[in-house]
Amino acid sequence: MGTIITLTTDLGLTDAYVAAMKGVILSINSEAKLIDICHCVKPQNISQAAFVLGTAYQFFPPKTIHVVVVDPGVGTERRAIVLRTPLADFVAPDNGVLSYVIRPFSHQPTADNTNQQQIELAPELEAVAITKPQFWRSPVSPTFHGRDIFAPVAAQLSLGFPLTDFGDIINSVTVLPLPHPHWTPDGKLVGHILHIDSFGNLITDIKSDDLSQTGQSITIEVGNQLITGLSRTYAEGKGLLALVGSSGHLEISLKDGSACARLDAEVGDEVRIGQQPGGNR
Amino acid sequence: MGTIITLTTDLGLTDAYVAAMKGVILSINSEAKLIDICHCVKPQNISQAAFVLGTAYQFFPPKTIHVVVVDPGVGTERRAIVLRTPLADFVAPDNGVLSYVIRPFSHQPTADNTNQQQIELAPELEAVAITKPQFWRSPVSPTFHGRDIFAPVAAQLSLGFPLTDFGDIINSVTVLPLPHPHWTPDGKLVGHILHIDSFGNLITDIKSDDLSQTGQSITIEVGNQLITGLSRTYAEGKGLLALVGSSGHLEISLKDGSACARLDAEVGDEVRIGQQPGGNR
Amino acid sequence: MGTIITLTTDLGLTDAYVAAMKGVILSINSEAKLIDICHCVKPQNISQAAFVLGTAYQFFPPKTIHVVVVDPGVGTERRAIVLRTPLADFVAPDNGVLSYVIRPFSHQPTADNTNQQQIELAPELEAVAITKPQFWRSPVSPTFHGRDIFAPVAAQLSLGFPLTDFGDIINSVTVLPLPHPHWTPDGKLVGHILHIDSFGNLITDIKSDDLSQTGQSITIEVGNQLITGLSRTYAEGKGLLALVGSSGHLEISLKDGSACARLDAEVGDEVRIGQQPGGNR
Repeated sequence: MGTIITLTTDLGLTDAYVAAMKGVILSINSEAKLIDICHCVKPQNISQAAFVLGTAYQFFPPKTIHVVVVDPGVGTERRAIVLRTPLADFVAPDNGVLSYVIRPFSHQPTADNTNQQQIELAPELEAVAITKPQFWRSPVSPTFHGRDIFAPVAAQLSLGFPLTDFGDIINSVTVLPLPHPHWTPDGKLVGHILHIDSFGNLITDIKSDDLSQTGQSITIEVGNQLITGLSRTYAEGKGLLALVGSSGHLEISLKDGSACARLDAEVGDEVRIGQQPGGNR
Repeated sequence: MGTIITLTTDLGLTDAYVAAMKGVILSINSEAKLIDICHCVKPQNISQAAFVLGTAYQFFPPKTIHVVVVDPGVGTERRAIVLRTPLADFVAPDNGVLSYVIRPFSHQPTADNTNQQQIELAPELEAVAITKPQFWRSPVSPTFHGRDIFAPVAAQLSLGFPLTDFGDIINSVTVLPLPHPHWTPDGKLVGHILHIDSFGNLITDIKSDDLSQTGQSITIEVGNQLITGLSRTYAEGKGLLALVGSSGHLEISLKDGSACARLDAEVGDEVRIGQQPGGNR
Repeated sequence: MGTIITLTTDLGLTDAYVAAMKGVILSINSEAKLIDICHCVKPQNISQAAFVLGTAYQFFPPKTIHVVVVDPGVGTERRAIVLRTPLADFVAPDNGVLSYVIRPFSHQPTADNTNQQQIELAPELEAVAITKPQFWRSPVSPTFHGRDIFAPVAAQLSLGFPLTDFGDIINSVTVLPLPHPHWTPDGKLVGHILHIDSFGNLITDIKSDDLSQTGQSITIEVGNQLITGLSRTYAEGKGLLALVGSSGHLEISLKDGSACARLDAEVGDEVRIGQQPGGNR
């Protein structure tokens, strides 16, 4: 069956780890369509993987299977899960990499809590803990469940096996505390850099909806720089500019260059939205 | 329908932008065969994208659809087009990225003109401006037409929709002034570095036909170095060598190393072909 | 026919060389399923390519065709071959890149001999020298047999043409002297770093079987560091650790970091296994 199976990993492009997973999948379902989402997640960076997956999965056809292997706890007691949403299935370690998939369905903790948390699954979601070894490769390497557990489970899932063949139903899963912008007493909106893309664009946790409450004549403070007003495209204006990017988030960009390099910015840095003096709210 | 759709972009390998495009295409035509040409074009480097595409598209089967997303003007007034040649279809911004595709059919401006130019389409070519939004994703992000316009247009094209469903026929398209070698009064051929590949080979705009007019005992001057004679393979001789590479262009190469690093070379640098003293012409 | 064809090359990700090969293959067999094993082998590094291929090919379905283009001798007298094993077919230059494929079937020279050697093929293996140009692209570029010979041969092979259509049967092939660990007179096992992966893990030529002879309380000496005992997962312990990795080889790893960077390690460096004072053998 020609199900699409996507792969999001930190396994890089200089080894054959990803290819080994693909070989395992194709050995079980030779009709599977394999699509790479990203293999250049920084080693063991769960929140980056969560964000990258979160910007892509919703563009795939219904019933796509998304496999995520960013798994610093591989071989330990951390759970592996299959999560089924109304749109797609996800095979991943239960370490928070699915936070952006789960968020639309559930209230989630905010960034004030810096640790992973368990949350109860919303009724639209189903999940099982992957515990039944019948579909796994044998022996399982304690260092590469991607190849020996996730790949064969995803392949069998693509053949139509029911969720409960892989393990028992669970009612809660792990999520990361996702950053959210907040309002200060003096009326500023303070957000954070969520992700820096390969162009050096700084993608923040401030969404276009948040900005609709700030009026037209806004200022954006990031690093020691002040940007006035929003651009519509990367080609407008000059120097640093701010716009609503393709994921619906406020982005800081540098025309013909890298905003990241210019501002020496890092994920987590604050971005402050205010009003131009004299601007209307 | 199992049409091949290739992707050439500057979107990089560390984000999910390319995957989002693939998801959009597969949501429309689940049978499309997606092939990556290159996603590591330098950000917004139109001439590099044009060259890279130009070295690959002719090896694909007839009716392949090639999508190019190197698009610094995204969201502005720049046009997007579908170009149909006797060999293939191309979906791209009208910014010159298709210059090497159009060149075999048309006289094109030389590098003395440094700006993009409009040229009339040769009779073998057809093109439309992409203006009809019926196939686009909605809303269209002004910063990512690759996902919201080019991907769905390519997917619909692969399903057999006629060109004019995407917009009105146009008679001219934009090309870059492609560099060409020229002869000096004292009988030297002066070319330029067009592209530097990942081995550090310097690929020039001098073609094997040009060299047939220079005789056997040629000298090649590049940087401050003089290379005598042509090699046939990378393994011959030692140190710097010159040969006709797999794209039919004169290349400068360094045995077991990077000619680019050795010569501190850049795209656009001059390469001068002369005669060995005493050599026959 | 939907045969899987994999590609392992040093052609990189910034050019269209790999895409040109894919176009050639799909022009001959539009149903071929193309899978990338790795294109980031260091330029002309035959032993790295051999190792990377060796960690992946056995996970693919029977009758997969594996193409390898790491070919410093391209265009010279070096042979190109098709090798058939009970599991798969391989199309490659005869320069040692298939050493790990051949090893399970044949006694091979050890690393004391630093040059490539010819060995006789085991009876389970078949091979032909690729000499018959009928399936090649024409003209053949002397610098890119990957595109003009290996790709069309692999594609025709995937259509079911018999081995001998590509050239005459040969009885010996080239292998690299693969490093093997050895025992010192004072009872230490001395191995070598075979490969450094993208996480900075140091993968050695010492296999889990070798370690079964050393008892539990082992010490691992690498660089100037001493590691005591084996871990089971990357998440155990702290700092430098040693474990048996997913390829069955002893690996040195650094928790939350790169062992390669910490130890300034290189492929070929020695790793010495001893006994803890007072440990049982």
